[in-house]
Amino acid sequence: MRSIADNAQLALLLEVSSTPKPGNVDREHEYADLRFEHFVAGGVGAREGLERAAEGGPVGEAFERAVAGMSTQSGGNTQFGAILLVTPLVVAAARGRDDPASPGDPPRELTPEMASEVVAQTTVEDAIGFYRAFDHVGVAVDDPPENLDAPDVRLGSDAAPALREQELTLEDVMADSAEIDGLAAEWVGGFERTFEIARRISAREGPVTDRAASVFLEALGEEIDTFVVTQHDRETAREVKRRAAAALDGDESPDDLAAEFVDRGINPGTTADLIAGGFFVALERGLEV
Amino acid sequence: MRSIADNAQLALLLEVSSTPKPGNVDREHEYADLRFEHFVAGGVGAREGLERAAEGGPVGEAFERAVAGMSTQSGGNTQFGAILLVTPLVVAAARGRDDPASPGDPPRELTPEMASEVVAQTTVEDAIGFYRAFDHVGVAVDDPPENLDAPDVRLGSDAAPALREQELTLEDVMADSAEIDGLAAEWVGGFERTFEIARRISAREGPVTDRAASVFLEALGEEIDTFVVTQHDRETAREVKRRAAAALDGDESPDDLAAEFVDRGINPGTTADLIAGGFFVALERGLEV
Repeated sequence: MRSIADNAQLALLLEVSSTPKPGNVDREHEYADLRFEHFVAGGVGAREGLERAAEGGPVGEAFERAVAGMSTQSGGNTQFGAILLVTPLVVAAARGRDDPASPGDPPRELTPEMASEVVAQTTVEDAIGFYRAFDHVGVAVDDPPENLDAPDVRLGSDAAPALREQELTLEDVMADSAEIDGLAAEWVGGFERTFEIARRISAREGPVTDRAASVFLEALGEEIDTFVVTQHDRETAREVKRRAAAALDGDESPDDLAAEFVDRGINPGTTADLIAGGFFVALERGLEV
Repeated sequence: MRSIADNAQLALLLEVSSTPKPGNVDREHEYADLRFEHFVAGGVGAREGLERAAEGGPVGEAFERAVAGMSTQSGGNTQFGAILLVTPLVVAAARGRDDPASPGDPPRELTPEMASEVVAQTTVEDAIGFYRAFDHVGVAVDDPPENLDAPDVRLGSDAAPALREQELTLEDVMADSAEIDGLAAEWVGGFERTFEIARRISAREGPVTDRAASVFLEALGEEIDTFVVTQHDRETAREVKRRAAAALDGDESPDDLAAEFVDRGINPGTTADLIAGGFFVALERGLEV
């Protein structure tokens, strides 16, 4: 049986191995300065932090360690979002393996409720760890909307005093940006899309990377990718959603779409992160590779 | 700085990410039942054993653990040879980091001499660990030649009594098959080709996976691949060497060669293993990804 840290690392690596995922780096598509090898090195470097999470956390510290390790490659931000989504799931999976329903029972299978419990128990220190992770790597973010309580993430570790003063937990921080960030929405919304993606990957047939590529296209056609909104604008994100749906209907070629999106620098990273999270859940629930 | 275990795991993953490597699984070529995803899962599963090696071994036990972990995927043997080559190098690198020349000095850089010292110090228990690894996965091997002292590897853990009785160390076992196995030749020949490949990968420019693909083709054109001899015969291995040299000279297309070799099931695995070993040495000596 694969360890929880193995499954988390494998999830990151299988995500980037799944092709075509229009606009994202995958094993057949890359940007000149952000390449497949950077994602492989990022997935390797994240290992120690993922192990920390598999030992039960704390969530914020494990996340920061994983991001620091991920950043030991020259491509920049490869898997910040994927690690953010996977970390509470890893902690939840660890609790399920350690604390069966009754003594002698098999491990509890990872559920949305278990993951949401981990989120609900996050602390101010976890929030500080999350902000500190922004010190390690440049992450594309917009100016925060006016009505946001939480400090600007670009402050990094300098946000600690404000977080302490406002007594903001990592759950509070995520709740604050759930409307504008698809990953924060998962954190505070029971990881609904993540578990749905896991279900779809597990239910299909064939090589797991092919299954994930088709699930990616579906997910991209179903919801706006918030990273495209950040990188470009809402109109571009709507176009991406519409054209992914068209590719699903057979009205566009996914391969042509992949080439075009890479050319235009359109990189639906949030949807890719959901695939990584979905892979982790699927692997924990028995997906065979 | 990446840990030694990180570098070892990254070496396995970068090897299979390097394309085209005619006849081998890489990120653009796979067999129906032996796919890229199996190598990714193999590289993840090997982690715990590689960590054992990075803690100083013992070599045989670390190797067996890595192979057992590598085998937790459904593709079969993915990186048995690569792990065999990398394990003593990892142990040697760990000693170099732990024991600088004088106290306060930087870590000693990994050298062929340090790796050969690890080989020279292997024990009968290491040999038993090596044989035990064959219990975990089907490895293609020929009937042993008549003049071989060491037990048939296909005995797996059942070879232990004979190894003990003959007092064969893992170095003895490798010396015994150095003539027919390119990896055993590395073990007892100062890892000459491995370090040369590391030097070449480091000396070139561009994405590291592109550099490794071109170094692979050179290595394939320079020496017979002993895995092709095992899988097919010496004549096929000579053809592979000749055609790789022709591809290097521009007389054949590496991409066409890759497609043809995959079609014919010609899989120059030993040369791929040398690339993994070379990647590890290069990473330990400062190769940036």
